[in-house]
Formats: sequence, structure tokens, C-alpha cells
Amino acid sequence: MRISELAERTGVPVATIKFYLREKVLPEGERSSPTQASYGEAHVQRLGVIRALVDAGVGLSGVRKVVAVLEEPPENPYDLLGAANAAVTPTFPADIDLTQALALLERMGGSAEKCFPDQVAAVAHALTTLDRAGFTVPPPVMDAYLEHLSALAEAELEATPDTSLEDAVRYVVLGTALVEPLILALRRVAEQVAASRRFGGPVG
Amino acid sequence: MRISELAERTGVPVATIKFYLREKVLPEGERSSPTQASYGEAHVQRLGVIRALVDAGVGLSGVRKVVAVLEEPPENPYDLLGAANAAVTPTFPADIDLTQALALLERMGGSAEKCFPDQVAAVAHALTTLDRAGFTVPPPVMDAYLEHLSALAEAELEATPDTSLEDAVRYVVLGTALVEPLILALRRVAEQVAASRRFGGPVG
Repeated sequence: MRISELAERTGVPVATIKFYLREKVLPEGERSSPTQASYGEAHVQRLGVIRALVDAGVGLSGVRKVVAVLEEPPENPYDLLGAANAAVTPTFPADIDLTQALALLERMGGSAEKCFPDQVAAVAHALTTLDRAGFTVPPPVMDAYLEHLSALAEAELEATPDTSLEDAVRYVVLGTALVEPLILALRRVAEQVAASRRFGGPVG
Repeated sequence: MRISELAERTGVPVATIKFYLREKVLPEGERSSPTQASYGEAHVQRLGVIRALVDAGVGLSGVRKVVAVLEEPPENPYDLLGAANAAVTPTFPADIDLTQALALLERMGGSAEKCFPDQVAAVAHALTTLDRAGFTVPPPVMDAYLEHLSALAEAELEATPDTSLEDAVRYVVLGTALVEPLILALRRVAEQVAASRRFGGPVG
């Protein structure tokens, strides 16, 4: 298909497609004449991943990382998931104390060698913020976090599509970044439901 | 104690304490002379709640809402939790379609009358964003979200301190807002742990 059809199919404006071509995150089409190129399903899929990343707030450098993974897929699916996940994880100062975070990681059955440093640093950063506010997560609540977030992650991973590499990366990236607001919103509703169960709901 | 001691005890600068006094989110001290007032433990506690709210990114209007709850505590603990929770929940446009969000609420055992509209709207908003990105949460994953977030919320509520109203509000507000980055960071680590369990960890 022509670039105009590709734009129509994907909802991505021609100018934006040209930008992605220039930035080499979208591969060139096949030259059908000196002034025309032809695009296929692979381009539609790739644009889907790129738009999803952009919608999830991932910048061009993150898009590049994910595209690099897609173009030279690691042999190990673990590395694929990791690279997609890393692309949407912010980086943290390297001097943060990881002791507590690593202890939580181990309680979830993980180990430092099998986890990306930025992910452990994100946990450490969150713990530091709580600490500064003088807030301690009660131990039984922390137990519940580790248990239920592990179960949740297992279910997410179980559902990774095996239809194509693009599909899997798209799922991991969106499932990681874009689903976060849903999880937080559902948790707040769940808290309200739990409170109403316990206290009988609002008066009136 | 004097205002300078209150500042030292709480780590909140005198100028900031005076601002909170002017804004009436911190009650006046007891006048000990025309130019001096004396502050007590209640002021220390209140400042703890205010700082926690501010650290959690809650603005002055949110602080006011929480303080109003503390000053005229509802008879029903449910309303207390709800007011604290509402103070840290962003508002959403009223014209959002709530159908899907309400269905999820019901699956968690809740009902529209027993939930704050903004919380349901937050779920609807998150679903709309996913929809626009062409991402569907696979049904078994949504089941896992509802089940495990409910269990997590039960554990959180179970641990609400009953030592004082201030403690309970502080716990709910911080437990809602400030713990969110921890939950998200732990989920990402849990995903990595699940991936390494399934695929045997990174190569090399």
C-alpha cells in the first residue's frame, strides 16, 4: 500500500509516518518507483507499537530501545520482555540504597541478578519517599502486596500473546505502562468496596 | 510548646506553620500572652497529616477537605475513609461513559451508591485510554486484577490504626496516595520475577 493508505489504515498522519521513517524507527517501504514506496502489514504492526508507546508516555529514545529489540529479537523471551519493560521504566540515581528493595525482591522469589537495576531502584525510591513522610507500610499489608502483586504479574505474563513478536512487545509495553492507571483506579474502588463491606456503606 | 519548638519537633519551618495557621488548616494555639501562643500534641499530629498530604502531592484544597473531616468527624468510619480518599482522588469530566467501570465495580462486590463517583470515573477514564491505544486487558488478567486488588484493599483496610482519628486519616491518605509508586514498582519487579521463573532468567 502507499503511504497515504498506511496513514488511513493506522490513523497516523503521513507527516508523522515520514518522521518515523527519518528517525528509522519505522523501516523503509519497498521502492516501487524512484518516487514511490510500498508498505505492508509489518508497517501497520510497527506503527501500532510505536503509537502505543507514545500514548503510554514513552519518548523517542524509549521507542528506539523497543524497536531495537524487535529488529534483533533476543533468543531468550525473558530478554525480550525485559527490554520492553526497561524501555518504559524511568531511571533512578545510582546512589540509592537498595538494601530494603532487594529484601522485598527476594521475598517475591527473585534475585538481584535476574532483575533490572532500574526496577529495583524504583522500589527503593518509593520506599524512601514513604520513609520521608514518616509512613511505614504495616508488615501484614506488605505481605499482601508481595503476594497479590506476584499473582497478578503471573496472570499478566500467562496472557502474553504468541502470535508475533510485535504483538508480544506491544502487550508487554502497554500492559506495563498503560495499564497502571487502571490498576490504581481499581485499587481505590476496591478500598471503597472493602470499607463499605466493613462499615455498612455511607450513611443516608 | 512555643511555635519554634513545634517547628523543631515537626521539621516544618516556622514560616510554613504560620501559613497553615493563616489558612486555618492548623488550629490556633492557646494564647499564653497577647504575643504568644502555646501548642500541643494535637498540633504535632495535625502537622504530620498536612505534611504527609503535601508530600503526596495533595494541594491546599485537598488538605482543607481532609482537615474538615478531622474537625467534624463523621459518625460513620466509612464516611471518614471516603472523605480522606476523595481528597486525594482527581476529578474527571462528568460526561464519561461509566458502563464498563460500573460493571467492574459490581464484579468486585460493590455498587454505584456505595462508591464515590470520581473513583468510578477514574476507572472509566483508564479504560478509555486503553481503548484508544487499541489495547484490551485479556479477560483472565482482568479477573486477576479484580481478585488480587480486592484482597490487597482488604489487607490495607484491616490495618487501619484505631489509635486516633488523625492516625486513621493519615494512614488512609498516605496509604492511598503515597503508596501508589511502591505498588507500581513492586508490580514491575514481580513481572520480572515471573518472567525469569518462566523463561529461566537473562542469558549470560
